[in-house]
Amino acid sequence: MNNDISESLQNLINAFTCLPSVGTKTAERYAYSVINMSEDTVKFFADSLIKAKETLHYCKICGNFTDKDICNICATRHSKVICVVKEPKDVRAIEKSKHFQGLYHVLHGTISPLENKGPEDIRIKELVDRVSNGDIEEVIMATNPDVEGEVTATYIAKILKPLGVKVTRLAQGIQMGSDLQYADEVTLTKALQDRREL
Amino acid sequence: MNNDISESLQNLINAFTCLPSVGTKTAERYAYSVINMSEDTVKFFADSLIKAKETLHYCKICGNFTDKDICNICATRHSKVICVVKEPKDVRAIEKSKHFQGLYHVLHGTISPLENKGPEDIRIKELVDRVSNGDIEEVIMATNPDVEGEVTATYIAKILKPLGVKVTRLAQGIQMGSDLQYADEVTLTKALQDRREL
Repeated sequence: MNNDISESLQNLINAFTCLPSVGTKTAERYAYSVINMSEDTVKFFADSLIKAKETLHYCKICGNFTDKDICNICATRHSKVICVVKEPKDVRAIEKSKHFQGLYHVLHGTISPLENKGPEDIRIKELVDRVSNGDIEEVIMATNPDVEGEVTATYIAKILKPLGVKVTRLAQGIQMGSDLQYADEVTLTKALQDRREL
Repeated sequence: MNNDISESLQNLINAFTCLPSVGTKTAERYAYSVINMSEDTVKFFADSLIKAKETLHYCKICGNFTDKDICNICATRHSKVICVVKEPKDVRAIEKSKHFQGLYHVLHGTISPLENKGPEDIRIKELVDRVSNGDIEEVIMATNPDVEGEVTATYIAKILKPLGVKVTRLAQGIQMGSDLQYADEVTLTKALQDRREL
């Protein structure tokens, strides 16, 4: 403990450093801002932390975070399309595009030999069950376009195709609003291969 | 409320956006990381927030944050030098340099006509009282080297000098480890004016 600051302030700074990419400087900034917040705001902040941790768990169907048994999306949407993503925050990202009205399936990871993660360590079995039991027509693989994401997508496609379901992959190509000259070679090659008629 | 995420998660995201320079994206990242923390960590986090807000207040002498009547520095250090800063986090910054063993005085702001802040809105009176009553030999003005900081330093110096105390200002010049070609003109001028013999 630094003797120039009191224990409760040091504890708060330590707590903030538990957040991703928050170092001491940022944690200090956050901590000092908390002292200047109203008492109600701080109480709301603390309550939100406890409540989120207490109530949130995986949706029984899709694996997204929810505070009910079944998440809002699984409970209200009737769709024959499942979008498969790596993490709950990917659901958030796709929902924000507002152009997908189907269901989701969160894998909570990808196949990664480097991290010693095999197919049985992520929620593939649950996906196969969903496809086998329901009348799903299409599964969109929306894992990240990196090595692990590609491997996982290919692996899952191989398992699902025999079940008679269409398996697709998110389009890969140059980013909207980007500059062609800065696109990397792999992306450009992919964009050329997958070119479409206008 | 977005219907794709549950209320408790949305509340947590909202809470994080109360922190300085935290937008929705960062708040989401923080919120998801909280769900993956252990229950103990989350409890510690929430407790730290509440406790810091509850227990921290201004030190009766220097104005820094403390959970006692008088802060650790005022209680333990015997010095005839006071370093005057704008905010509590400035105390932290100077303490980290480990080259100052004196006392502090936190103004909690600077004179700023733009923000309608006059000398009576910051803790100048308390500083004058300290200098008048104690046997202080030197007051170091460590307000920021911007317009408000300079004005405040000059104003305070004018009041304190008649009390027979030495008033100094932190040295201004080119930053250690920086590159001369990128130094701005005002800084270079200051560095030339205040050059010292080797």
